[in-house]
Formats: sequence, C-alpha cells, structure tokens
Amino acid sequence: MIVEVVAVGTELLLGQIANTNAATIGAALAEKGFDAHFHQVVGDNLNRVASAISAAIDRSDAVIITGGIGPTQDDLTREALCLATGLEMDYSEEYAQHLREWWSQRGREMPDSNLRQAQHPVGATLLDNPRGTAPGLSIDHGGTLIFCVPGVPEEMQYLLSAEVLPALIARDGSEHVLVSRILRTWGRSESDIAEVLDDLYQESTNPSVAFLASAGEIKVRLSAKAASSSAAESLIAPVEAQVRERLGSSIFGVDDETIEVVLFRLLEERGWRIGTAESMTGGMVGARLTDLAGSSRYYVGGVVAYEARLKQSLLGVVDVKQVVNEETATAMAEGVRELLGMEVGVSVTGSAGPEPMEKPVGTIVVGVATPEGSMARELRMVGDRERVRTYATTTALHLARLGVSGVWWSN
Amino acid sequence: MIVEVVAVGTELLLGQIANTNAATIGAALAEKGFDAHFHQVVGDNLNRVASAISAAIDRSDAVIITGGIGPTQDDLTREALCLATGLEMDYSEEYAQHLREWWSQRGREMPDSNLRQAQHPVGATLLDNPRGTAPGLSIDHGGTLIFCVPGVPEEMQYLLSAEVLPALIARDGSEHVLVSRILRTWGRSESDIAEVLDDLYQESTNPSVAFLASAGEIKVRLSAKAASSSAAESLIAPVEAQVRERLGSSIFGVDDETIEVVLFRLLEERGWRIGTAESMTGGMVGARLTDLAGSSRYYVGGVVAYEARLKQSLLGVVDVKQVVNEETATAMAEGVRELLGMEVGVSVTGSAGPEPMEKPVGTIVVGVATPEGSMARELRMVGDRERVRTYATTTALHLARLGVSGVWWSN
Repeated sequence: MIVEVVAVGTELLLGQIANTNAATIGAALAEKGFDAHFHQVVGDNLNRVASAISAAIDRSDAVIITGGIGPTQDDLTREALCLATGLEMDYSEEYAQHLREWWSQRGREMPDSNLRQAQHPVGATLLDNPRGTAPGLSIDHGGTLIFCVPGVPEEMQYLLSAEVLPALIARDGSEHVLVSRILRTWGRSESDIAEVLDDLYQESTNPSVAFLASAGEIKVRLSAKAASSSAAESLIAPVEAQVRERLGSSIFGVDDETIEVVLFRLLEERGWRIGTAESMTGGMVGARLTDLAGSSRYYVGGVVAYEARLKQSLLGVVDVKQVVNEETATAMAEGVRELLGMEVGVSVTGSAGPEPMEKPVGTIVVGVATPEGSMARELRMVGDRERVRTYATTTALHLARLGVSGVWWSN
Repeated sequence: MIVEVVAVGTELLLGQIANTNAATIGAALAEKGFDAHFHQVVGDNLNRVASAISAAIDRSDAVIITGGIGPTQDDLTREALCLATGLEMDYSEEYAQHLREWWSQRGREMPDSNLRQAQHPVGATLLDNPRGTAPGLSIDHGGTLIFCVPGVPEEMQYLLSAEVLPALIARDGSEHVLVSRILRTWGRSESDIAEVLDDLYQESTNPSVAFLASAGEIKVRLSAKAASSSAAESLIAPVEAQVRERLGSSIFGVDDETIEVVLFRLLEERGWRIGTAESMTGGMVGARLTDLAGSSRYYVGGVVAYEARLKQSLLGVVDVKQVVNEETATAMAEGVRELLGMEVGVSVTGSAGPEPMEKPVGTIVVGVATPEGSMARELRMVGDRERVRTYATTTALHLARLGVSGVWWSN
C-alpha cells in the first residue's frame, strides 16, 4: 500500500522550519510496512495545494496532508481538497457547537473565523483533535484514503497514532512490519564498501541492502518486510552476519549509536573519564563530547591550544617549533591527561588550510593517552578547511574508541 | 523566478533523516528573492526520480536536485535526468582522471564504481566539488536551469553558494538586476522588528521589505529591481537608512557577514586577541572562532572547564559551589584572559538540560573581560539542549562583539 505525504505551508518552502512532520510520518509508515514513493511540500496557495493533492491521489493508495487546516485566511487545505476531488463544501453545526464550547470553557468568545474549522468536503469524517481546535479529516475518495491533519507536530502525532495509522492498517488488511538495521562504519570509503557488498546489494531483496554516506561515516541499511518483527529480524540476521564478517571492526555501532555513544559506553566499562587537547579543531571535539545529555559523567574538560606556545605552557609539550607530528600529538594527549588528572587524553593537531602549516593541508594528527599507553597517528584528508576539521574531529573520537577499547594497542 | 527543490533518497521517505537540505536551500533562495512553489522528495527509483524531475521542469524556471549522485548503484540521479530530459549520457575522461588523482593522492586505488561520477547528460557542465568526489552538474534544458548537487549537507552547501546561487542570479539578471541587502540583527524578536518596521513593510514595494528568521538571528531583506546595480542600490539606500536608524546596534552585519567576521574586524581595529573559557558549550565557541581561515591572528585558545573544579584549578574561580551566575562568568572570562595572557576573554556557563543545573534549563550566562572592564549577562532561552547550546554560542560571540566595540560599557 503506497502512502504519500503532502505538507502544506509557505514557511516550509522558505526554510524557516524543516519538514520534520514528513520524517515522523515516514518513519511511522515504514515501521508498519507501508510504502512511500513521494513526499511533497506546497505553499499556502489554493490552486497549487489542489494540484499537489491531485498528483498524490493519482499515484497513491492513501494521502496524508499536514497543515493548512487552522482558522486563518491562509489555511486553504479544506478548499483545496474540494477543488482536487470535485466535492462540495459541507458544514458541521455539531462541530461548530463543539468549538463554541471549547472557547467558552476557556472564558473567551470565539472569533467567527474559527467556524472555518467546522467546514469539510461532503462525506468527510471529522477527526477529534483534543490537543487543538482544528479537527482532522478523513475521506475515502474513489478508493483512495485521504487524511488531513494539523501542521503542529504534537497535534499531528496524536492524530497519526489515534486515527490515521489504525485506518490504514484496517484498509491494508494484513499488518506488515518493516524492520531496518543500520550498521555504521568508519575508515572505509562508500565505494569500497559497495564493492565488498555488491553481491548482497544485487541479490538480496528482503532484506534490501542500501548504503548511506554522512560526514565521513558510511552506513549499511538492511530493511526486511515480514508479518511480524521477529520474522523480519530472522530475515535480517543471516545477511547482517555476512556484512559483519566482511566489514569487521570497521563497524563501530548499530542503528542510533553514534561514535560518542559507543565511546561513552567503553569509558563506562573501564570506569575512565576523558579530556581533550585541541589545536586545529579549536574545540570541536569537546563540543561533540558534550552534545549528549549526561556527558559530564565521561567528559571533564580540556584545553584549546590553538597558538603553539600554549601547547608548551598548558600541556607541557617541550618542543613547539614543529607541532604537526606524532610526537607533539602524543605529548598533548599525555599533557592534558596530567593537567586535568583523568585517565584518558585525546589530542588533535594538524594543518587545516587553506594555507599549509608545516605539512600539506589536510594533515591530521591524533594522539591518545590512556593508563595502558600512548600513541598517535598521522593521516591525510583531501578537502577544504571545514571538511578537514570535521573529519579530524570524527577521527579523534574513533581513535579514542580504539584506544579505550584496547584494540589500538593490540594491532 | 520560480525555483523547485527535488530531494532524492529513500532514507528521506523512511524518515531516517529530515530533509534539512530543502530547508537550507529554501532559506538561501528566499534570501536572494527567488520564489518557491513546491518541494519534492522521491526515493531511489529510476522512473520515479525521472517523473519528479519532469514535474519540476514543467512548472519551474530552475530545478535543484539534491542527492543520488554518489558512486553507488542506488545513485540514480544522473540516469533519471537523462530519462526526464531525453538527453544521452556522456562521459568525461578529464573528470575520470581527476578522480583517479584524488584517490592516488590518498595512496589508494580507486574502485571502478567511482567512474560513474564522471558520467553526465550531454551538454551538462560538471561542477567541481572540493569537499567530496561527486561533482555537481548544471544544464540549461530548454530555458530551465537544472542543477544536481550531492545530498551530503556540507557538499550541498558548498555547491549551492559557489555555483547554484551565482548561476541563478546571473540568469535572473538577464532582464533586470535584482539587488538584495540583508541587514542582520541580533537581540530582538521577529515580531518586535516587524512592528518597528511595519510601515516600511506595508508601503515599500521597490525595495521590498521581508523578514527572515534563522537560528536566533532575524534578517531584514531589502530587495530592489532596476535596470542596473547602481540604480537598485540607489533605491535601497534611503530605506536602509531608515531601517538602520530604527534598529540601531541590533544590526551587527550586512549580507554574508557572520558574527565571527564582525568580531574579528573589531579585534583587528583594536589590535586585540581573544580567548575562550567554556562550560555548557564544551568547545563550541572556540570551534566557531576557528571556522574561518586566518583565525589564529585573533583567537589564541582557551579552556573547556566542563567539570566545576576545573573552573577553580585552571581559571581561578574562587567559589565553584554555584557556577551558573554572573560572578562565575565574569571570573571565568577574567581568568582565561590572565591564563593565556591576552586582551579579551569570553566565557559561557549555564544549564543546557535536559536536567536543570542550579537554575532552570535554558539559563545562559556569558562573561566578557577586556582591558576596559568586565561584565556578564544572564539570559533564558526556551528549547532543547542542542538549541540552548547553539544559542549560547551565538550569544557569547555577540556579547564579545559588544564588549570589544565598547558598546556594552557605554549602555
């Protein structure tokens, strides 16, 4: 069953807000095993909203329209739905009364404009929305199920769970479940991974195999459809085992696990805490390590030694004439460990560009010091300043993971 | 000029990521005065990507396609573009050679699949992408400009700024010149600014007046159309003068000037340098200050004192039992100034959430110390941890600006 989401609102086109409703609905539909081929966003314009709805009706089994059902003049979804379906506009005196009571319960008189919310195409069902005043709508138009829900995320979510998904499942007859497993890798290129897994990509249809690249990390997604979650998991298991065997320790996490989460889990297991000594990244590693709530359990603080002399005065690096090398990175990691009095220090130095500093632009040196030893690694990354710095930050977290887990020392 | 965004990627339909690219592009287009009627999202399916592109071509003057131009088998945008336009696929041996060099510079052999990235519809221009290996594409198809850019946000953003927007502006200017002036403000709400400028908003048509909100900053856009740039500038000048008179020091920059650029210019004028003492932001202020090339001229380094005791041992804060207050922020700013031996120190402490620390979640305290004096300000921000930390970072840079310029002391 193919379901399409149409989001109505000029603010989405102007980029004032991201279309998180579509992502929420998309994830909920995928979890229930429904297919999605298109999403649309359209501004607050009657004819264009109608044309978006028409296109969705023509190619989908169900359409979920978000936004444009409030009380103001630029809330045009109801009119557009009439235009797209050829249905006349009807009016619910019962709902108008409900609205009047809603307002009087709050000791206020209802502005007349709110009566627009009692309008609906002939034959539509009004869906009660206890979190707001705009009711949702549902209608079966020649076999296509159409739903209108508010654009306010919490109201949308309520109607999605309480009305839309149950109606779609009832229509679909059988409840399919789509389960996805994301295997997150670092240290190999997307094309390298695609080549290593090419036969699985070509031959495996359930689960399907896909590759997603984001910020230096390559994700392998396995998606299986089945009658139950456990059946879908069983389909995924053998393919996942093959992917794991081929990619080995390149896989650092699963699903929502970021490198920070994985690093914190390893620190928890060891009973260790970490500090940062940053040069080229200027604080980006510390910023990443404090993104998560509760990070103070694992991250204590650090030093940004951007100027070379601070590497000496704060971190005790002896020779600061040349600072883009493994000796300096190791000394920085050991220095911050000592300065802050904690178990693990991670350091980054390098040449971010655009002008080379000591070594070619893109040179990244990461050092890690733990109670088990110190080590550094120099890498070269091609890209501009922002990309090099972002990659250096991720590299620091990944090498800290290898250091804390002990894998680095055993290689 | 109507521009449509088509985002390609099954992960968007499945809600694994929100379509932030569309929001970024939408905001950039709005800032330059382009119109948007629709956005589309389509999964990794050849015929459906082609149909989305066709629909966009039929109703828009320009189409920006994001995603689907990587090296893997599910990157189908190039093929879909051929299908939608009826153009044959061509191959650039020059770009293939560029790709081989990119890989050999990294000491690795290129997987053959990467050669897909040298393919393009006949007549298309390859757009160099220094942040990745997938080149962008641009083509003029019967008067409709079509661009393909990567789905990776940082690569998309580079090509948007470097290639897409300049090309759209050049195309738009064939009939007239559209000049926009963005006045960037901080510290006032959108509704406040809209009220203060309401008569200009209502009455001024050339230049038009618009308000754009993004990440705590409100931009006032003045857009004038005329036969030449200088004529458009003359239309903008008197309105800009009025806006400046009414908004005063809330305006911190113009057009592409970020707060970092403005702060560095003020530091240059004073002959001063700056250091950071961060708690809740964990390094984000230092990271922002080192984003720009050449930042070592103005930024020396700093301390991330995430754990309270480091505020004492490294920054000399006397009482660290309570640290979310103006006294602590001032002491941190003075402490880092002294520790690093430079003229300006800026500090951030606060309660980022989700659990309150001393004060309600969203409490932000920024301190600034210069040779002219020290000061701190406590603010409250509504939002989640990420939003609060981002806002705290921007606040630190803005208050540093007021401190360095001397405006803060004269208020």
